[in-house]
Amino acid sequence: MFDLSPRIQELKQQLEAFMDEHIYPNEALFYEQVKQNKWSHPAILEELKQKAKSQGLWNLFLPHSERGAGLSNEEYAHLCEIMGRVSFAGEVFNCNAPDTGNMETIERYGNEEQKEKWLKPLLAGEIRSCFSMTEPDVASSDATNIECEIRRDGDEYVINGTKWWSSGAMNEHCKIAIVMGKTDPNAAKHLQQSMILVPLDAPGVTIVRDLHVFGYDHAPHGHAEIRYENVRVPVSNILLGEGRGFEIAQGRLGPGRIHHCMRAIGQAERALEAMCRRAADRVAFGKPMYRLGSVPEMIAKSRCEIDQARLLTLHAARSMDKYGNKVARQQIAMIKAVAPTMLCNVIDRAIQVHGAKGVCQDSFLASAYAKARTLRLADGPDEVHLNTIAKLEMGQYL
Amino acid sequence: MFDLSPRIQELKQQLEAFMDEHIYPNEALFYEQVKQNKWSHPAILEELKQKAKSQGLWNLFLPHSERGAGLSNEEYAHLCEIMGRVSFAGEVFNCNAPDTGNMETIERYGNEEQKEKWLKPLLAGEIRSCFSMTEPDVASSDATNIECEIRRDGDEYVINGTKWWSSGAMNEHCKIAIVMGKTDPNAAKHLQQSMILVPLDAPGVTIVRDLHVFGYDHAPHGHAEIRYENVRVPVSNILLGEGRGFEIAQGRLGPGRIHHCMRAIGQAERALEAMCRRAADRVAFGKPMYRLGSVPEMIAKSRCEIDQARLLTLHAARSMDKYGNKVARQQIAMIKAVAPTMLCNVIDRAIQVHGAKGVCQDSFLASAYAKARTLRLADGPDEVHLNTIAKLEMGQYL
Amino acid sequence: MFDLSPRIQELKQQLEAFMDEHIYPNEALFYEQVKQNKWSHPAILEELKQKAKSQGLWNLFLPHSERGAGLSNEEYAHLCEIMGRVSFAGEVFNCNAPDTGNMETIERYGNEEQKEKWLKPLLAGEIRSCFSMTEPDVASSDATNIECEIRRDGDEYVINGTKWWSSGAMNEHCKIAIVMGKTDPNAAKHLQQSMILVPLDAPGVTIVRDLHVFGYDHAPHGHAEIRYENVRVPVSNILLGEGRGFEIAQGRLGPGRIHHCMRAIGQAERALEAMCRRAADRVAFGKPMYRLGSVPEMIAKSRCEIDQARLLTLHAARSMDKYGNKVARQQIAMIKAVAPTMLCNVIDRAIQVHGAKGVCQDSFLASAYAKARTLRLADGPDEVHLNTIAKLEMGQYL
Amino acid sequence: MFDLSPRIQELKQQLEAFMDEHIYPNEALFYEQVKQNKWSHPAILEELKQKAKSQGLWNLFLPHSERGAGLSNEEYAHLCEIMGRVSFAGEVFNCNAPDTGNMETIERYGNEEQKEKWLKPLLAGEIRSCFSMTEPDVASSDATNIECEIRRDGDEYVINGTKWWSSGAMNEHCKIAIVMGKTDPNAAKHLQQSMILVPLDAPGVTIVRDLHVFGYDHAPHGHAEIRYENVRVPVSNILLGEGRGFEIAQGRLGPGRIHHCMRAIGQAERALEAMCRRAADRVAFGKPMYRLGSVPEMIAKSRCEIDQARLLTLHAARSMDKYGNKVARQQIAMIKAVAPTMLCNVIDRAIQVHGAKGVCQDSFLASAYAKARTLRLADGPDEVHLNTIAKLEMGQYL
Repeated sequence: MFDLSPRIQELKQQLEAFMDEHIYPNEALFYEQVKQNKWSHPAILEELKQKAKSQGLWNLFLPHSERGAGLSNEEYAHLCEIMGRVSFAGEVFNCNAPDTGNMETIERYGNEEQKEKWLKPLLAGEIRSCFSMTEPDVASSDATNIECEIRRDGDEYVINGTKWWSSGAMNEHCKIAIVMGKTDPNAAKHLQQSMILVPLDAPGVTIVRDLHVFGYDHAPHGHAEIRYENVRVPVSNILLGEGRGFEIAQGRLGPGRIHHCMRAIGQAERALEAMCRRAADRVAFGKPMYRLGSVPEMIAKSRCEIDQARLLTLHAARSMDKYGNKVARQQIAMIKAVAPTMLCNVIDRAIQVHGAKGVCQDSFLASAYAKARTLRLADGPDEVHLNTIAKLEMGQYL
Repeated sequence: MFDLSPRIQELKQQLEAFMDEHIYPNEALFYEQVKQNKWSHPAILEELKQKAKSQGLWNLFLPHSERGAGLSNEEYAHLCEIMGRVSFAGEVFNCNAPDTGNMETIERYGNEEQKEKWLKPLLAGEIRSCFSMTEPDVASSDATNIECEIRRDGDEYVINGTKWWSSGAMNEHCKIAIVMGKTDPNAAKHLQQSMILVPLDAPGVTIVRDLHVFGYDHAPHGHAEIRYENVRVPVSNILLGEGRGFEIAQGRLGPGRIHHCMRAIGQAERALEAMCRRAADRVAFGKPMYRLGSVPEMIAKSRCEIDQARLLTLHAARSMDKYGNKVARQQIAMIKAVAPTMLCNVIDRAIQVHGAKGVCQDSFLASAYAKARTLRLADGPDEVHLNTIAKLEMGQYL
Repeated sequence: MFDLSPRIQELKQQLEAFMDEHIYPNEALFYEQVKQNKWSHPAILEELKQKAKSQGLWNLFLPHSERGAGLSNEEYAHLCEIMGRVSFAGEVFNCNAPDTGNMETIERYGNEEQKEKWLKPLLAGEIRSCFSMTEPDVASSDATNIECEIRRDGDEYVINGTKWWSSGAMNEHCKIAIVMGKTDPNAAKHLQQSMILVPLDAPGVTIVRDLHVFGYDHAPHGHAEIRYENVRVPVSNILLGEGRGFEIAQGRLGPGRIHHCMRAIGQAERALEAMCRRAADRVAFGKPMYRLGSVPEMIAKSRCEIDQARLLTLHAARSMDKYGNKVARQQIAMIKAVAPTMLCNVIDRAIQVHGAKGVCQDSFLASAYAKARTLRLADGPDEVHLNTIAKLEMGQYL
Repeated sequence: MFDLSPRIQELKQQLEAFMDEHIYPNEALFYEQVKQNKWSHPAILEELKQKAKSQGLWNLFLPHSERGAGLSNEEYAHLCEIMGRVSFAGEVFNCNAPDTGNMETIERYGNEEQKEKWLKPLLAGEIRSCFSMTEPDVASSDATNIECEIRRDGDEYVINGTKWWSSGAMNEHCKIAIVMGKTDPNAAKHLQQSMILVPLDAPGVTIVRDLHVFGYDHAPHGHAEIRYENVRVPVSNILLGEGRGFEIAQGRLGPGRIHHCMRAIGQAERALEAMCRRAADRVAFGKPMYRLGSVPEMIAKSRCEIDQARLLTLHAARSMDKYGNKVARQQIAMIKAVAPTMLCNVIDRAIQVHGAKGVCQDSFLASAYAKARTLRLADGPDEVHLNTIAKLEMGQYL
């Protein structure tokens, strides 16, 4: 229904074929291997990565850069949705969070040395990265609350603080963190913060524990609580410069958020598909479930909500492509406020149609719900985005 | 944000200028004149029609026909939304319901004689028309319930039945009705019905009363209950042929529904604008309302819902243009299930922000709500559309 | 299901019999008479009042006073709900707003002279009263915004201000207003306001116009905009004393709010009854509507919401009886935040089940919705009550 | 606010003191011990059980029986809510599901031999039980779908079938199952089923696996999938008689459902408490969260919903006490349709206020949500209960 360019149509077909041939049939195997050795890369993942790379299905994100595949945000959206259907598929194509966001950050704001050292192996899929922003002790939705200290000491910065929800950091391949902290607590409110590159093997970095999401550990990635205790890195590890952490955060979060939303739409499609299949298969009170009571409305509302969220996301992507992330910030806030809630609602209905099967390990729904629910908080809770939308809307009347 | 062709951009600007210059400033006058003489055309309306006609802002609907302005559904959508902001604006441009639907019906399904006699003066805006389908005594959402009898008697059809919600029929300019009824109650379920042209001055046609909507009489159009008692019309008045009423209904309702939705989006934009202005103007508990409690979320959610509904509507319009109304029927059902509810929600929030002013004659909101609420029933209740969506969605799994 | 005392059981049966015998059969007549002479008392109303009075079904509100029927709030709740089923029934039993609130205000806060002059004829049903608090120019939900001036000048107070939504004031029997205004704009915030009795025939009182609610004029009561221009009343007309307006407002609003909620429950029961009857009578798509799609859920959810709101209201009434209106203020805020929205939802579903009949004059639903929607604003918008609930809830944690 | 008898007031205080002194302080220890040895009883649980028993806080459920504490359903409701605040507290007082339901079933429908052998040790808390009704292969919400076979063979019944969600059966103390299956597939629809007692150590009983709920294994109880393969039990193990399974199910499910709802209210209170404490502790955008944006409304709505659900539950309990479970079945269906959804909504808001802490192991919220969500399916999905409510409501109009 969308006017896709021939190149995107082709990529889409190629990607769907790859999913059908290589990803879906290996889902069970992936989780089995993870169970063997939680925090390492399962062999099947490496195998799939090689396959994808050899087919050119690699680094499809990263618009406006010669390092990426040269796709616009809107073009990537169609592909990212497909990857989003399987939780680990993104990584197969080197398109998974938070690595995409981190790569885009280094690409946009890093210097050549930083790119050589970290971006290159990340783009090659050789190492993984994490993003250390949120802190357990403060309401991090207001980023000015962040307390981690980045103090300059000669040619080094000394980092002290506790971060959590550093996703991906439990994995043994995770080598580098982008850490947000305060270089100058006395500067103007939005100039106090900086972002800095911290190798996870630096002395003073401790992985304290892994955080669960509704009972899931999200291996092989995991969400780490990390203590940074007198961690020393060379001054050249700073990104863009002291006091520019907010600026980077603004730039970084747009793409990160839209990728989340694209994947959310893929997840929602898969949940709706599961809902329909279940409704077709089961009979209760003398009728197939798809004709029973409010089940048709559950299906119909899900279709309406998914299609609307997709169109909003594509529209936001187009705005980003055309006018830049800053002009498109109301659009970005809108999809972040809309897509995760939409996904929660669609999965919730799918669970209801599945009955007890929907809450246990026999379907992907409960696990998908846990992630979807978390997405209403990650990269800012719904309330913060709604507030942004309102502020920008009111702008024209004040 | 949308890629409008230069012609549409120009038409849009022209239309917006016309609204600013001629429509908004005359809203009060219009209602004042209506009060003087309920069921005639207010002078200002005729005056505005002439102005619009002379500017070429006339018959902008009617795609794929040389009688219209040559716009696609998608192109028209951008214009129809703007007209939708003011309840009587559509008629100024000869783009109001149910005349648009009736004109499109005669254009698509009428013979040359019918076009000459009825379509021509309708396109010229000289007469008005109504659509007599719904009946008070049966659940008309299931059109097979319709009981009106159209019996052939020699060279004439004899019509007997009571219809209501024949919108526009209270007006003295309304001259012709398209009536749906059964020509053959023994035929297959979807071949029993026919549509026929009935002049309102035919003997046996009685306007029984006008129906109110939440206390509003919707003058100068009004919604009529009409009794057809042994009304005789020549057999040539039948549309398309006996037993083809359902076929016409299918074809007719698509465009009718999407026009409703386009106008709904215009209404919603106007309501959101009113909400923001009010929130900017009033202070309570020491704060401007736009910063108070949940008011920002009311604004933000409205923006999200409007934009999603607009994108869905444009997308449906594009599908109709590209693939035809039949292929696009899930899309059409989706917008009809989505847009009226969206509009109700947005207006409801605007009312809440306006306080008591929102429910009385000092704002357009209460009156707009009454219409919006009715739209959840007109051309099929939400439930019927949701059911259609579900049925089409399930198709691929059965 | 409730343990009603024998007296209340008897009163309830008596009241229900009265409704069946005298009220329901006269609804049509009432509105017909109103149409003849909008702002006077229709004859049937006077006739019914005499009947009710002679049966002792009179002044059933007004707890803890020898002037009332000696019922507690909880006892009255069961009766008030029944009266609430018909919009004009309250007045038949001299139990209608705003007279009940005004009578209770004068009873609690008036002096003997004021009671003799105004309370007595009000209790006798000989005159009617209005309450002039809300103002068109400020957000009156924050009562500190109120601007009406009550200036002392010798033995008189001089009143200047414009009030609107003075309900009941359009009627020719309305003789007295309780007006809220500022006696001392320099006093502490909650001591600036006073309430004063103003006869509507005092020079300087102008009924400016009647306000409509969603197209309804609510005759024979109506909602008036009143201009008070240099209106002079003796100083003895002040209630309780200068600067005690807020104190009275607090005391007055509790009972007023709970009565609204009781009536709302009666309205909701009537709407649910109508919904069920319609669902039983109509057939669509081969089934009676009560077995069709989501209709059963619409019925079931309505039953759940009504019963919960009733229990909450009875519980609040019991709290008021046992601990006083001040201690019960979270309970009162809760029912005011819950019952009107519940009523809107139930009526909205009933409308949907009725189809087009539900929005027009052929059912009571559209008119009931308009009132219900207004109730989400009257005596404070939902948002204010929710805020009160939250503040009281948080009290224990701060 | 409720009129509790002195005995219940005293029990309530005693129970609250026990919770404060013994349960809350041992929550962490309980889960630590569970981690050591998943499917056995943690030592702390046994210790707490002895303490509770010695205080007489034991078997407080089971109304109208000399084996219980002699409390009515309404009286027990106040206590059960308190226990519900901690997931394992019920068992401390021998008041946990599914044992309560099983004990009540044997008490009401078992013969003396069955009572001696199974009820006695269950009441003593020496063994645990499970309920094997739901099956993986059919929509068990329609119990006529159940396929498990109970075939008579001489003096024995032979049982064949696969059941899942036999909660509690993973625990080593679980010794007995009540199994529902078909004794006569040719009998009238509601006479095909029977319930039978099956010792878990009988040959042919296999615990296939444990089912997870949103990633949680719910140790030490767990939810088992059980295969019954040619399991033989003496004919005396049948409950009540062949073909009376539905009759027992009806009788059993009422109390089971209301207990779930009582506990749900306790959980909701705890979640609201957590929400308020968090809102009091955190500051964002220059304000404590309890004054920020829509947070007050989240608190207020939660209070309104909890109180309404509690009142509805108490009212249902009173109806059961007064009129029996059969007459009260609309009330029972109502609370089952209302309380779990209410609980999901309250916890969901609490999660949102907690941010990322709310979805991980650092609060009880995510785990509580998983259970609450499951409760919308357990003992019948919402849809089935809503349908029951509608059917009973419509009864008076048909």
